[in-house]
Amino acid sequence: MTTQALLEQIHKKKSFLCIGLDTDLEKIPTYLLSEEDPMFAFNKEIIDATHHFAVAYKINTAFYEAQGRKGWKALNKTIEYLNAEYPEIFTIADAKRGDIGNTSAMYAKAFLQEMAFDSVTVAPYMGKDSVEPFLAIRDKHTILLALTSNEGAFDFQTLKTDGVELYKKVIETSKTWENSERLMYVVGATKAEHLAEIRKLIPDSFLLVPGVGAQGGSLEDVCKYGMGKNVGLLVNSSRGIIYASETSNFAEIAAAKAEVMQREMAAQLSKLHQ
Amino acid sequence: MTTQALLEQIHKKKSFLCIGLDTDLEKIPTYLLSEEDPMFAFNKEIIDATHHFAVAYKINTAFYEAQGRKGWKALNKTIEYLNAEYPEIFTIADAKRGDIGNTSAMYAKAFLQEMAFDSVTVAPYMGKDSVEPFLAIRDKHTILLALTSNEGAFDFQTLKTDGVELYKKVIETSKTWENSERLMYVVGATKAEHLAEIRKLIPDSFLLVPGVGAQGGSLEDVCKYGMGKNVGLLVNSSRGIIYASETSNFAEIAAAKAEVMQREMAAQLSKLHQ
Repeated sequence: MTTQALLEQIHKKKSFLCIGLDTDLEKIPTYLLSEEDPMFAFNKEIIDATHHFAVAYKINTAFYEAQGRKGWKALNKTIEYLNAEYPEIFTIADAKRGDIGNTSAMYAKAFLQEMAFDSVTVAPYMGKDSVEPFLAIRDKHTILLALTSNEGAFDFQTLKTDGVELYKKVIETSKTWENSERLMYVVGATKAEHLAEIRKLIPDSFLLVPGVGAQGGSLEDVCKYGMGKNVGLLVNSSRGIIYASETSNFAEIAAAKAEVMQREMAAQLSKLHQ
Repeated sequence: MTTQALLEQIHKKKSFLCIGLDTDLEKIPTYLLSEEDPMFAFNKEIIDATHHFAVAYKINTAFYEAQGRKGWKALNKTIEYLNAEYPEIFTIADAKRGDIGNTSAMYAKAFLQEMAFDSVTVAPYMGKDSVEPFLAIRDKHTILLALTSNEGAFDFQTLKTDGVELYKKVIETSKTWENSERLMYVVGATKAEHLAEIRKLIPDSFLLVPGVGAQGGSLEDVCKYGMGKNVGLLVNSSRGIIYASETSNFAEIAAAKAEVMQREMAAQLSKLHQ
Protein backbone atom coordinates (compact mmCIF):
# COMPACT_ATOMS: atom_id res chain seq x y z
CA MET A 1 0.00 0.00 0.00
CA THR A 2 1.24 3.50 -0.81
CA THR A 3 1.29 6.21 1.87
CA GLN A 4 -1.08 8.12 -0.42
CA ALA A 5 -3.66 5.32 -0.14
CA LEU A 6 -3.17 5.26 3.63
CA LEU A 7 -3.69 9.02 3.80
CA GLU A 8 -6.86 8.82 1.74
CA GLN A 9 -8.24 6.26 4.15
CA ILE A 10 -7.34 8.49 7.10
CA HIS A 11 -9.31 11.39 5.64
CA LYS A 12 -12.23 9.18 4.66
CA LYS A 13 -12.58 7.54 8.08
CA LYS A 14 -11.47 10.66 9.96
CA SER A 15 -9.22 8.39 11.94
CA PHE A 16 -5.57 7.50 12.31
CA LEU A 17 -6.26 4.73 14.76
CA CYS A 18 -4.22 1.53 14.69
CA ILE A 19 -5.59 -1.33 16.75
CA GLY A 20 -3.02 -3.69 18.23
CA LEU A 21 -3.96 -7.36 18.17
CA ASP A 22 -1.94 -8.42 21.23
CA THR A 23 -4.10 -11.49 21.47
CA ASP A 24 -3.48 -13.43 24.68
CA LEU A 25 -5.33 -16.65 25.50
CA GLU A 26 -5.29 -15.67 29.16
CA LYS A 27 -7.14 -12.43 28.47
CA ILE A 28 -9.72 -13.21 25.80
CA PRO A 29 -13.25 -14.18 26.92
CA THR A 30 -13.08 -17.74 28.24
CA TYR A 31 -16.00 -18.98 26.15
CA LEU A 32 -13.85 -18.51 23.04
CA LEU A 33 -11.38 -21.13 24.27
CA SER A 34 -13.67 -23.90 23.02
CA GLU A 35 -13.37 -22.59 19.45
CA GLU A 36 -11.09 -24.49 17.07
CA ASP A 37 -8.82 -21.43 16.77
CA PRO A 38 -9.59 -19.11 19.71
CA MET A 39 -6.99 -16.46 18.77
CA PHE A 40 -8.31 -16.10 15.25
CA ALA A 41 -11.95 -16.20 16.44
CA PHE A 42 -11.18 -13.33 18.81
CA ASN A 43 -9.33 -11.33 16.15
CA LYS A 44 -12.05 -11.82 13.57
CA GLU A 45 -14.73 -10.51 15.93
CA ILE A 46 -12.57 -7.54 16.94
CA ILE A 47 -11.73 -6.67 13.33
CA ASP A 48 -15.31 -7.01 12.06
CA ALA A 49 -16.58 -4.79 14.88
CA THR A 50 -13.88 -2.10 14.84
CA HIS A 51 -12.77 -1.69 11.21
CA HIS A 52 -14.97 1.35 10.59
CA PHE A 53 -12.97 3.27 13.17
CA ALA A 54 -9.44 2.06 12.41
CA VAL A 55 -7.12 2.53 9.45
CA ALA A 56 -4.53 -0.03 10.57
CA TYR A 57 -4.13 -3.23 12.56
CA LYS A 58 -0.87 -4.15 14.22
CA ILE A 59 -0.21 -7.81 14.93
CA ASN A 60 2.25 -8.31 17.77
CA THR A 61 4.05 -11.48 16.69
CA ALA A 62 5.23 -12.37 20.23
CA PHE A 63 1.75 -13.24 21.40
CA TYR A 64 1.34 -15.72 18.54
CA GLU A 65 4.81 -17.25 18.81
CA ALA A 66 4.16 -17.91 22.51
CA GLN A 67 1.40 -20.32 21.43
CA GLY A 68 3.66 -22.36 19.17
CA ARG A 69 2.44 -23.78 15.87
CA LYS A 70 -1.19 -22.97 16.66
CA GLY A 71 -0.27 -19.38 17.31
CA TRP A 72 1.65 -19.11 14.06
CA LYS A 73 -1.38 -20.50 12.25
CA ALA A 74 -3.66 -17.94 13.94
CA LEU A 75 -1.27 -15.15 12.90
CA ASN A 76 -1.38 -16.37 9.30
CA LYS A 77 -5.16 -16.66 9.28
CA THR A 78 -5.51 -13.15 10.73
CA ILE A 79 -3.39 -11.45 8.09
CA GLU A 80 -5.05 -13.51 5.34
CA TYR A 81 -8.45 -12.42 6.65
CA LEU A 82 -7.44 -8.76 6.78
CA ASN A 83 -6.01 -8.85 3.25
CA ALA A 84 -9.05 -10.64 1.85
CA GLU A 85 -11.85 -8.79 3.63
CA TYR A 86 -10.39 -5.34 4.28
CA PRO A 87 -7.67 -4.72 1.68
CA GLU A 88 -7.91 -0.96 2.30
CA ILE A 89 -6.60 -1.43 5.86
CA PHE A 90 -2.87 -0.87 6.50
CA THR A 91 -1.32 -3.90 8.22
CA ILE A 92 1.70 -3.94 10.50
CA ALA A 93 3.71 -6.97 11.59
CA ASP A 94 5.02 -5.76 14.93
CA ALA A 95 7.93 -8.15 14.89
CA LYS A 96 10.91 -5.92 15.76
CA ARG A 97 13.23 -7.98 13.59
CA GLY A 98 16.69 -7.11 12.26
CA ASP A 99 19.80 -9.18 11.49
CA ILE A 100 22.71 -9.36 9.04
CA GLY A 101 21.74 -8.76 5.41
CA ASN A 102 21.01 -12.27 4.17
CA THR A 103 18.97 -12.99 7.30
CA SER A 104 17.01 -9.72 7.19
CA ALA A 105 16.16 -10.59 3.59
CA MET A 106 14.54 -13.78 4.92
CA TYR A 107 12.49 -11.82 7.46
CA ALA A 108 11.44 -9.36 4.75
CA LYS A 109 10.32 -12.28 2.61
CA ALA A 110 8.38 -13.81 5.52
CA PHE A 111 6.45 -10.72 6.57
CA LEU A 112 6.19 -8.49 3.49
CA GLN A 113 5.93 -11.10 0.75
CA GLU A 114 4.74 -14.49 2.04
CA MET A 115 2.31 -13.07 4.61
CA ALA A 116 1.87 -9.84 2.62
CA PHE A 117 1.82 -7.39 5.51
CA ASP A 118 2.08 -3.77 4.37
CA SER A 119 4.82 -3.10 6.89
CA VAL A 120 7.06 -4.57 9.58
CA THR A 121 8.76 -3.04 12.62
CA VAL A 122 12.57 -3.30 12.63
CA ALA A 123 15.20 -2.62 15.32
CA PRO A 124 18.07 -0.36 14.19
CA TYR A 125 20.96 -1.64 16.35
CA MET A 126 22.64 -3.62 13.55
CA GLY A 127 22.62 -0.68 11.12
CA LYS A 128 22.20 -0.12 7.41
CA ASP A 129 22.66 -3.60 5.95
CA SER A 130 20.22 -5.03 8.51
CA VAL A 131 17.45 -2.66 7.40
CA GLU A 132 17.94 -2.18 3.65
CA PRO A 133 16.67 -5.69 2.71
CA PHE A 134 13.28 -4.66 4.14
CA LEU A 135 13.38 -1.32 2.32
CA ALA A 136 14.06 -3.07 -0.98
CA ILE A 137 10.46 -4.24 -1.29
CA ARG A 138 8.26 -1.95 -3.33
CA ASP A 139 5.00 -0.55 -1.88
CA LYS A 140 5.93 -1.89 1.55
CA HIS A 141 7.07 0.04 4.60
CA THR A 142 9.73 -0.50 7.24
CA ILE A 143 8.87 0.96 10.61
CA LEU A 144 12.15 1.63 12.38
CA LEU A 145 12.34 1.82 16.17
CA ALA A 146 13.42 5.35 17.07
CA LEU A 147 12.21 6.32 20.56
CA THR A 148 10.16 3.57 22.14
CA SER A 149 7.38 3.93 24.72
CA ASN A 150 8.98 1.94 27.54
CA GLU A 151 11.17 3.01 30.46
CA GLY A 152 14.16 1.17 28.96
CA ALA A 153 14.17 3.71 26.12
CA PHE A 154 16.28 5.88 28.43
CA ASP A 155 19.01 3.23 28.74
CA PHE A 156 20.48 3.73 25.28
CA GLN A 157 18.14 5.62 22.92
CA THR A 158 18.56 8.97 24.67
CA LEU A 159 22.33 8.72 25.22
CA LYS A 160 24.17 11.49 23.44
CA THR A 161 26.55 10.60 20.60
CA ASP A 162 28.43 13.54 19.13
CA GLY A 163 26.07 15.77 21.12
CA VAL A 164 22.95 14.22 19.58
CA GLU A 165 20.68 11.64 21.18
CA LEU A 166 21.07 8.16 19.69
CA TYR A 167 17.43 8.02 18.50
CA LYS A 168 17.97 11.21 16.51
CA LYS A 169 21.18 9.78 15.09
CA VAL A 170 19.21 6.68 14.08
CA ILE A 171 16.64 8.84 12.30
CA GLU A 172 19.25 11.03 10.58
CA THR A 173 21.37 8.09 9.47
CA SER A 174 18.39 6.10 8.23
CA LYS A 175 17.51 8.93 5.85
CA THR A 176 20.71 8.15 3.90
CA TRP A 177 19.76 4.51 3.29
CA GLU A 178 18.54 3.23 -0.05
CA ASN A 179 14.75 3.50 -0.49
CA SER A 180 14.54 5.48 2.75
CA GLU A 181 11.28 7.01 1.51
CA ARG A 182 9.73 3.68 2.56
CA LEU A 183 10.64 4.30 6.21
CA MET A 184 8.24 5.06 9.03
CA TYR A 185 9.31 5.36 12.67
CA VAL A 186 8.16 4.15 16.08
CA VAL A 187 7.92 6.99 18.60
CA GLY A 188 6.20 6.27 21.93
CA ALA A 189 3.26 8.43 23.03
CA THR A 190 4.85 8.53 26.49
CA LYS A 191 7.63 10.64 24.94
CA ALA A 192 5.28 13.17 23.27
CA GLU A 193 7.47 16.15 24.20
CA HIS A 194 10.18 14.73 21.91
CA LEU A 195 7.82 14.63 18.93
CA ALA A 196 8.29 18.29 17.98
CA GLU A 197 12.02 17.81 17.49
CA ILE A 198 11.51 14.56 15.65
CA ARG A 199 9.12 16.35 13.27
CA LYS A 200 11.91 18.79 12.41
CA LEU A 201 14.08 15.86 11.28
CA ILE A 202 11.35 14.03 9.37
CA PRO A 203 8.53 16.47 8.57
CA ASP A 204 6.70 14.13 6.20
CA SER A 205 7.30 10.63 7.54
CA PHE A 206 4.61 8.56 9.17
CA LEU A 207 5.12 7.80 12.85
CA LEU A 208 3.67 4.74 14.54
CA VAL A 209 2.86 5.89 18.05
CA PRO A 210 2.22 3.23 20.70
CA GLY A 211 1.66 3.93 24.37
CA VAL A 212 -1.65 5.80 24.37
CA GLY A 213 -3.95 4.21 26.94
CA ALA A 214 -2.54 1.36 29.07
CA GLN A 215 0.96 2.89 28.98
CA GLY A 216 -0.25 6.39 29.88
CA GLY A 217 0.40 8.53 26.78
CA SER A 218 -1.98 11.35 25.77
CA LEU A 219 -3.55 11.56 22.31
CA GLU A 220 -3.85 15.33 22.55
CA ASP A 221 -0.13 15.76 23.25
CA VAL A 222 0.79 13.36 20.47
CA CYS A 223 -1.22 15.44 17.99
CA LYS A 224 -0.02 18.76 19.37
CA TYR A 225 3.66 17.88 18.94
CA GLY A 226 3.58 15.16 16.31
CA MET A 227 1.00 15.86 13.64
CA GLY A 228 2.46 16.81 10.29
CA LYS A 229 0.89 18.63 7.38
CA ASN A 230 -0.06 15.25 5.95
CA VAL A 231 -1.14 13.86 9.32
CA GLY A 232 1.83 11.49 9.51
CA LEU A 233 0.50 9.65 12.55
CA LEU A 234 -0.76 6.17 13.27
CA VAL A 235 -1.70 6.04 16.93
CA ASN A 236 -1.92 2.55 18.33
CA SER A 237 -4.08 1.24 21.12
CA SER A 238 -4.04 -2.45 22.03
CA ARG A 239 -5.13 -3.46 25.52
CA GLY A 240 -7.37 -0.40 26.03
CA ILE A 241 -9.57 -1.48 23.12
CA ILE A 242 -9.37 -5.24 22.68
CA TYR A 243 -9.63 -6.10 26.40
CA ALA A 244 -12.20 -3.47 27.35
CA SER A 245 -14.62 -6.28 28.23
CA GLU A 246 -14.43 -10.02 28.94
CA THR A 247 -18.11 -10.64 28.25
CA SER A 248 -19.67 -12.13 25.13
CA ASN A 249 -20.25 -8.63 23.73
CA PHE A 250 -16.53 -7.81 23.99
CA ALA A 251 -16.34 -6.88 20.30
CA GLU A 252 -19.18 -4.38 20.61
CA ILE A 253 -17.51 -2.78 23.62
CA ALA A 254 -14.17 -2.73 21.81
CA ALA A 255 -15.91 -0.95 18.93
CA ALA A 256 -17.33 1.62 21.34
CA LYS A 257 -13.84 2.26 22.71
CA ALA A 258 -12.44 2.53 19.19
CA GLU A 259 -15.20 4.96 18.26
CA VAL A 260 -14.34 7.20 21.21
CA MET A 261 -10.77 7.37 19.94
CA GLN A 262 -11.88 7.89 16.35
CA ARG A 263 -13.99 10.89 17.44
CA GLU A 264 -11.08 12.43 19.30
CA MET A 265 -8.98 11.89 16.21
CA ALA A 266 -11.63 13.47 13.96
CA ALA A 267 -11.55 16.54 16.20
CA GLN A 268 -7.76 16.68 15.93
CA LEU A 269 -7.89 16.27 12.15
CA SER A 270 -10.38 19.09 11.80
CA LYS A 271 -7.83 21.44 13.41
CA LEU A 272 -5.41 20.58 10.61
CA HIS A 273 -7.62 22.27 8.05
CA GLN A 274 -8.45 25.38 10.04
CA MET B 1 21.55 -25.85 30.91
CA THR B 2 24.10 -24.32 33.30
CA THR B 3 27.29 -22.72 31.97
CA GLN B 4 29.14 -25.33 34.03
CA ALA B 5 27.51 -28.14 32.01
CA LEU B 6 28.37 -26.29 28.80
CA LEU B 7 31.97 -25.92 29.91
CA GLU B 8 32.23 -29.62 30.77
CA GLN B 9 31.02 -30.48 27.29
CA ILE B 10 33.59 -28.11 25.78
CA HIS B 11 36.43 -29.86 27.59
CA LYS B 12 35.07 -33.32 26.82
CA LYS B 13 34.68 -32.69 23.09
CA LYS B 14 37.68 -30.33 22.91
CA SER B 15 35.46 -28.02 20.92
CA PHE B 16 33.60 -24.76 21.30
CA LEU B 17 32.00 -25.03 17.89
CA CYS B 18 28.45 -23.86 17.34
CA ILE B 19 26.86 -24.90 14.06
CA GLY B 20 24.33 -22.52 12.59
CA LEU B 21 21.30 -24.14 10.99
CA ASP B 22 20.55 -21.37 8.46
CA THR B 23 18.53 -23.86 6.49
CA ASP B 24 17.48 -22.50 3.11
CA LEU B 25 15.38 -24.52 0.65
CA GLU B 26 17.29 -22.90 -2.20
CA LYS B 27 20.62 -24.19 -0.91
CA ILE B 28 19.98 -27.68 0.43
CA PRO B 29 20.55 -30.65 -1.91
CA THR B 30 17.65 -30.72 -4.35
CA TYR B 31 16.87 -34.41 -3.81
CA LEU B 32 15.74 -33.52 -0.27
CA LEU B 33 12.94 -31.35 -1.63
CA SER B 34 10.80 -34.46 -2.22
CA GLU B 35 10.89 -35.25 1.52
CA GLU B 36 7.77 -34.46 3.54
CA ASP B 37 9.73 -31.91 5.59
CA PRO B 38 12.89 -31.03 3.65
CA MET B 39 14.19 -28.49 6.19
CA PHE B 40 13.95 -30.93 9.07
CA ALA B 41 15.35 -33.79 6.97
CA PHE B 42 18.38 -31.64 6.16
CA ASN B 43 18.84 -30.54 9.78
CA LYS B 44 18.54 -34.09 11.12
CA GLU B 45 21.25 -35.36 8.78
CA ILE B 46 23.53 -32.42 9.59
CA ILE B 47 23.03 -32.83 13.34
CA ASP B 48 23.51 -36.62 13.33
CA ALA B 49 26.73 -36.26 11.32
CA THR B 50 28.28 -33.29 13.14
CA HIS B 51 27.26 -33.56 16.80
CA HIS B 52 30.56 -35.16 17.87
CA PHE B 53 32.38 -31.99 16.87
CA ALA B 54 29.95 -29.33 18.08
CA VAL B 55 28.78 -28.24 21.52
CA ALA B 56 25.99 -26.00 20.30
CA TYR B 57 23.50 -25.55 17.45
CA LYS B 58 22.11 -22.16 16.56
CA ILE B 59 18.78 -22.04 14.75
CA ASN B 60 18.33 -18.85 12.74
CA THR B 61 14.59 -18.27 13.01
CA ALA B 62 14.40 -16.05 9.90
CA PHE B 63 15.06 -18.95 7.55
CA TYR B 64 12.14 -20.89 9.03
CA GLU B 65 9.73 -17.95 9.20
CA ALA B 66 10.39 -17.29 5.50
CA GLN B 67 8.78 -20.69 4.78
CA GLY B 68 5.57 -19.90 6.64
CA ARG B 69 3.74 -22.51 8.69
CA LYS B 70 5.86 -25.35 7.27
CA GLY B 71 9.01 -23.54 8.31
CA TRP B 72 7.73 -22.96 11.81
CA LYS B 73 6.93 -26.68 12.03
CA ALA B 74 10.45 -27.59 10.86
CA LEU B 75 11.89 -25.24 13.49
CA ASN B 76 9.81 -26.93 16.18
CA LYS B 77 10.78 -30.41 15.03
CA THR B 78 14.45 -29.50 14.96
CA ILE B 79 14.56 -28.21 18.53
CA GLU B 80 12.46 -31.17 19.71
CA TYR B 81 14.90 -33.53 18.00
CA LEU B 82 17.93 -31.83 19.55
CA ASN B 83 16.39 -31.86 23.03
CA ALA B 84 15.34 -35.51 22.73
CA GLU B 85 18.43 -37.00 21.08
CA TYR B 86 21.26 -34.72 22.19
CA PRO B 87 20.22 -33.11 25.49
CA GLU B 88 23.87 -32.34 26.30
CA ILE B 89 24.03 -29.91 23.35
CA PHE B 90 23.53 -26.19 24.04
CA THR B 91 20.78 -24.76 21.83
CA ILE B 92 20.42 -21.18 20.64
CA ALA B 93 17.34 -19.57 19.12
CA ASP B 94 18.97 -16.89 16.98
CA ALA B 95 15.86 -14.76 16.94
CA LYS B 96 17.19 -11.27 17.86
CA ARG B 97 13.97 -10.40 19.66
CA GLY B 98 13.27 -7.59 22.14
CA ASP B 99 10.19 -5.49 22.90
CA ILE B 100 8.39 -3.81 25.82
CA GLY B 101 8.23 -5.93 28.99
CA ASN B 102 4.93 -7.78 28.56
CA THR B 103 5.82 -8.59 24.95
CA SER B 104 9.37 -9.74 25.71
CA ALA B 105 7.83 -12.04 28.34
CA MET B 106 5.85 -13.66 25.51
CA TYR B 107 8.99 -14.16 23.41
CA ALA B 108 10.79 -15.62 26.43
CA LYS B 109 7.90 -18.03 26.92
CA ALA B 110 7.95 -18.99 23.23
CA PHE B 111 11.65 -19.74 22.91
CA LEU B 112 12.89 -20.67 26.40
CA GLN B 113 9.84 -22.48 27.77
CA GLU B 114 7.53 -23.75 25.01
CA MET B 115 10.31 -24.69 22.61
CA ALA B 116 12.81 -25.17 25.44
CA PHE B 117 15.85 -23.65 23.79
CA ASP B 118 18.74 -23.11 26.23
CA SER B 119 19.16 -19.54 25.03
CA VAL B 120 17.88 -16.81 22.74
CA THR B 121 19.58 -13.83 21.10
CA VAL B 122 18.14 -10.43 22.06
CA ALA B 123 18.66 -6.89 20.68
CA PRO B 124 19.48 -4.26 23.34
CA TYR B 125 18.01 -1.11 21.76
CA MET B 126 14.89 -1.02 23.97
CA GLY B 127 16.86 -1.36 27.21
CA LYS B 128 16.47 -3.03 30.59
CA ASP B 129 12.76 -3.86 30.70
CA SER B 130 12.96 -5.39 27.21
CA VAL B 131 15.69 -7.84 28.30
CA GLU B 132 14.90 -8.71 31.93
CA PRO B 133 11.87 -10.91 31.07
CA PHE B 134 14.28 -13.23 29.25
CA LEU B 135 16.76 -13.15 32.14
CA ALA B 136 14.03 -14.12 34.60
CA ILE B 137 14.02 -17.72 33.42
CA ARG B 138 16.24 -20.02 35.47
CA ASP B 139 18.93 -22.14 33.80
CA LYS B 140 18.40 -20.29 30.52
CA HIS B 141 20.63 -17.72 28.87
CA THR B 142 20.05 -14.44 27.09
CA ILE B 143 22.60 -13.66 24.40
CA LEU B 144 22.65 -9.89 24.01
CA LEU B 145 23.84 -8.26 20.79
CA ALA B 146 26.94 -6.24 21.62
CA LEU B 147 29.19 -5.82 18.57
CA THR B 148 27.80 -7.65 15.56
CA SER B 149 29.73 -9.12 12.64
CA ASN B 150 28.22 -7.02 9.86
CA GLU B 151 29.30 -3.73 8.28
CA GLY B 152 26.27 -1.96 9.76
CA ALA B 153 27.76 -2.50 13.23
CA PHE B 154 29.71 0.72 12.60
CA ASP B 155 26.53 2.76 12.08
CA PHE B 156 25.52 2.90 15.76
CA GLN B 157 27.32 0.29 17.88
CA THR B 158 30.69 2.01 17.73
CA LEU B 159 29.42 5.57 18.21
CA LYS B 160 30.83 7.13 21.35
CA THR B 161 28.46 8.02 24.18
CA ASP B 162 30.13 9.77 27.13
CA GLY B 163 33.45 8.84 25.55
CA VAL B 164 32.61 5.13 25.43
CA GLU B 165 31.46 3.15 22.40
CA LEU B 166 27.78 2.24 22.52
CA TYR B 167 28.47 -1.51 22.48
CA LYS B 168 30.63 -1.13 25.60
CA LYS B 169 27.90 0.94 27.24
CA VAL B 170 25.44 -1.84 26.40
CA ILE B 171 27.73 -4.39 28.06
CA GLU B 172 28.39 -2.25 31.13
CA THR B 173 24.73 -1.32 31.61
CA SER B 174 23.54 -4.89 31.11
CA LYS B 175 25.71 -6.01 34.04
CA THR B 176 23.43 -4.00 36.37
CA TRP B 177 20.26 -5.83 35.27
CA GLU B 178 18.56 -8.46 37.38
CA ASN B 179 19.89 -11.99 36.82
CA SER B 180 22.67 -10.56 34.63
CA GLU B 181 24.74 -13.66 35.39
CA ARG B 182 22.52 -15.35 32.77
CA LEU B 183 23.80 -13.03 30.04
CA MET B 184 26.05 -13.99 27.17
CA TYR B 185 27.02 -11.59 24.36
CA VAL B 186 27.25 -11.60 20.57
CA VAL B 187 30.61 -10.31 19.33
CA GLY B 188 31.45 -10.76 15.66
CA ALA B 189 34.65 -12.57 14.66
CA THR B 190 35.19 -9.83 12.09
CA LYS B 191 35.77 -7.45 15.03
CA ALA B 192 38.34 -9.69 16.79
CA GLU B 193 40.59 -6.75 17.71
CA HIS B 194 37.82 -5.46 19.96
CA LEU B 195 37.64 -8.72 21.89
CA ALA B 196 40.54 -7.91 24.23
CA GLU B 197 38.77 -4.80 25.53
CA ILE B 198 35.47 -6.63 25.80
CA ARG B 199 37.18 -9.32 27.90
CA LYS B 200 38.25 -6.62 30.37
CA LEU B 201 34.59 -5.68 30.87
CA ILE B 202 33.27 -9.23 31.11
CA PRO B 203 36.16 -11.58 31.92
CA ASP B 204 33.97 -14.61 32.63
CA SER B 205 30.97 -14.27 30.29
CA PHE B 206 30.43 -16.50 27.32
CA LEU B 207 30.61 -14.81 23.93
CA LEU B 208 28.79 -16.12 20.89
CA VAL B 209 31.08 -15.31 17.99
CA PRO B 210 29.61 -15.43 14.47
CA GLY B 211 31.46 -14.42 11.35
CA VAL B 212 34.22 -17.05 11.09
CA GLY B 213 34.21 -18.50 7.58
CA ALA B 214 31.78 -16.99 5.05
CA GLN B 215 32.02 -13.55 6.67
CA GLY B 216 35.82 -13.62 6.85
CA GLY B 217 36.70 -13.75 10.57
CA SER B 218 39.74 -15.69 11.85
CA LEU B 219 39.45 -18.37 14.54
CA GLU B 220 43.02 -17.77 15.66
CA ASP B 221 42.41 -14.05 16.25
CA VAL B 222 39.18 -14.75 18.07
CA CYS B 223 41.00 -17.09 20.48
CA LYS B 224 44.00 -14.79 20.84
CA TYR B 225 41.91 -11.82 21.92
CA GLY B 226 38.74 -13.42 23.21
CA MET B 227 39.46 -16.61 25.09
CA GLY B 228 38.89 -16.36 28.82
CA LYS B 229 40.21 -18.52 31.65
CA ASN B 230 37.05 -20.59 31.37
CA VAL B 231 37.11 -20.57 27.56
CA GLY B 232 34.06 -18.31 27.33
CA LEU B 233 33.67 -18.74 23.59
CA LEU B 234 31.14 -20.31 21.30
CA VAL B 235 32.35 -19.82 17.76
CA ASN B 236 29.65 -20.21 15.14
CA SER B 237 29.94 -21.40 11.59
CA SER B 238 26.85 -21.76 9.41
CA ARG B 239 27.27 -21.65 5.63
CA GLY B 240 30.90 -22.85 5.72
CA ILE B 241 29.79 -26.16 7.26
CA ILE B 242 26.22 -26.91 6.27
CA TYR B 243 26.56 -25.93 2.61
CA ALA B 244 30.03 -27.39 2.01
CA SER B 245 28.50 -29.80 -0.49
CA GLU B 246 25.26 -30.12 -2.46
CA THR B 247 25.67 -33.84 -3.11
CA SER B 248 23.96 -36.72 -1.35
CA ASN B 249 26.90 -37.06 1.04
CA PHE B 250 26.55 -33.42 2.15
CA ALA B 251 26.27 -34.45 5.80
CA GLU B 252 29.53 -36.39 5.67
CA ILE B 253 31.31 -33.43 4.09
CA ALA B 254 29.77 -31.07 6.65
CA ALA B 255 31.12 -33.38 9.36
CA ALA B 256 34.58 -33.24 7.81
CA LYS B 257 34.43 -29.43 7.80
CA ALA B 258 33.24 -29.43 11.40
CA GLU B 259 36.06 -31.78 12.38
CA VAL B 260 38.65 -29.44 10.85
CA MET B 261 37.30 -26.63 13.02
CA GLN B 262 37.12 -28.88 16.08
CA ARG B 263 40.80 -29.78 15.66
CA GLU B 264 41.80 -26.13 15.41
CA MET B 265 39.77 -25.49 18.54
CA ALA B 266 41.41 -28.42 20.36
CA ALA B 267 44.79 -26.88 19.56
CA GLN B 268 43.65 -23.52 20.91
CA LEU B 269 42.23 -25.13 24.06
CA SER B 270 45.48 -26.93 24.72
CA LYS B 271 47.26 -23.54 24.91
CA LEU B 272 44.90 -22.58 27.74
CA HIS B 273 46.42 -25.19 30.02
CA GLN B 274 50.06 -24.58 29.20
